Amino acid sequence: MTQLPPIIKPAAPEHTHRVLLTVSYDGTAYAGWQRQSNAVAVQQRLEEALAQLTGVPTPVTGASRTDAGVHALAQCAHFDTKSSIPAARFPFALNPLLPPDIRVIGGQDVSGDFHARFDANGKWYTYRIYNAPHASALYRNITWHVPVRLNIENMRKSLQELLGTHDFCAFQASGGTAKTTIRTIDRFSLERQDELITLKIHGNAFLYNMVRIIAGTLYEIGVGRLSVQAFAEALAAGDRLALGMTAPACGLELTRVEYPDGLLENKE
Amino acid sequence: MTQLPPIIKPAAPEHTHRVLLTVSYDGTAYAGWQRQSNAVAVQQRLEEALAQLTGVPTPVTGASRTDAGVHALAQCAHFDTKSSIPAARFPFALNPLLPPDIRVIGGQDVSGDFHARFDANGKWYTYRIYNAPHASALYRNITWHVPVRLNIENMRKSLQELLGTHDFCAFQASGGTAKTTIRTIDRFSLERQDELITLKIHGNAFLYNMVRIIAGTLYEIGVGRLSVQAFAEALAAGDRLALGMTAPACGLELTRVEYPDGLLENKE
Repeated sequence: MTQLPPIIKPAAPEHTHRVLLTVSYDGTAYAGWQRQSNAVAVQQRLEEALAQLTGVPTPVTGASRTDAGVHALAQCAHFDTKSSIPAARFPFALNPLLPPDIRVIGGQDVSGDFHARFDANGKWYTYRIYNAPHASALYRNITWHVPVRLNIENMRKSLQELLGTHDFCAFQASGGTAKTTIRTIDRFSLERQDELITLKIHGNAFLYNMVRIIAGTLYEIGVGRLSVQAFAEALAAGDRLALGMTAPACGLELTRVEYPDGLLENKE
Repeated sequence: MTQLPPIIKPAAPEHTHRVLLTVSYDGTAYAGWQRQSNAVAVQQRLEEALAQLTGVPTPVTGASRTDAGVHALAQCAHFDTKSSIPAARFPFALNPLLPPDIRVIGGQDVSGDFHARFDANGKWYTYRIYNAPHASALYRNITWHVPVRLNIENMRKSLQELLGTHDFCAFQASGGTAKTTIRTIDRFSLERQDELITLKIHGNAFLYNMVRIIAGTLYEIGVGRLSVQAFAEALAAGDRLALGMTAPACGLELTRVEYPDGLLENKE
């Protein structure tokens, strides 16, 4: 009688070790990264796949708790396991157990005290605006549709004001739990290609909804309802009410999570 | 008693005139452009919206009968109507009646003998390959996942062989109904940006499945199973079997339909 072989050989009992995964997802169908009691989250799907693969409950810790509808090109998340599957093989073993809107694209060994969230020292986010009279059929889930023509030059000037280390308390949604609201933003780009306007922004860390408040405020500047000068003043005064709306989740993507040099390479 | 106003004022009786729409769609959920008896097509959704808007059945004729799963950035389609809605207003009137994966992005008056399909004298198609070990979570519906590293230079050399006027009978799927298989391809680009490989190709017209057979054949060349030389010979000999597979529909997008100078401008 023919039997199909198991996907992965049963793990030999081993010591517990920590693995860091890189995870890409289309957030459209999810309640966000973090496990919820009343809706499906990306973390839950990943933990279910890990439990199925390793045979034991396996909690994962993500670098960023992305909101409902927010996407990730490369979220990072660590977990502890006794599995003998080599870290680099986890993507190949997990992807068949995951829905196609979640893909594990990397796996590597890290030391037992590595922490995906607390050790992160830089992040890239991308925010996409579809700037055309009608929404995009093809990119509807990854863009914010803005039908009014935007002034990119003024938006760039405002981003210039954000560069450096500031108290970004004006750029925090209620519900944020950060101990300090001081953050450093050191790089950005804002480019238009046909209808698509792409903001890429890099900082050491971001407050709750910070990039979406930046995007919503850039919109106000782009349509001419907020001046670069008033924007700079609101930043200095910490005045949330002087800024723009929180832009929709669907336009936001966590693009990259960075760790200090040497923290990952040691174990690779 | 309060009544909600109708979206559009009832059309004043007018003479029949022809309108050309530009339509963008995500083909993932559809059985293709053309109305089917057993599955929902883009044409059907558009005709339903037009009937709802104008109050009378309104058949539309598309420039290209894209297959199931194929996308369009800018399909063109004409219809005849007695509606008094200005042509340029049709997108705004139709979009609220259409699902978000279909967007009408343009409308213009054309003469009564204009034909969206027969008058087209040029088309741009785009084919997207996601060239990485794991599929893309975010672009899974608009790319073909190829996990093997592709040789872009050899793929470009093969595309160079396609330039000019040839009998493309080797690049036609069974089921094609074209009277002649002679076509002209005059421009292309093939670029890699990170994991995404984008082919853009322009010709006067394309045979059934022609771009997907080109993409499937480029794949064979990219992985090294077919040489540029053997490719050129198969093109010259009209040998379909010497070429590659028909690449998946999801990677293909009808990007632009062109008409002779003056044919549209006359009525604008």
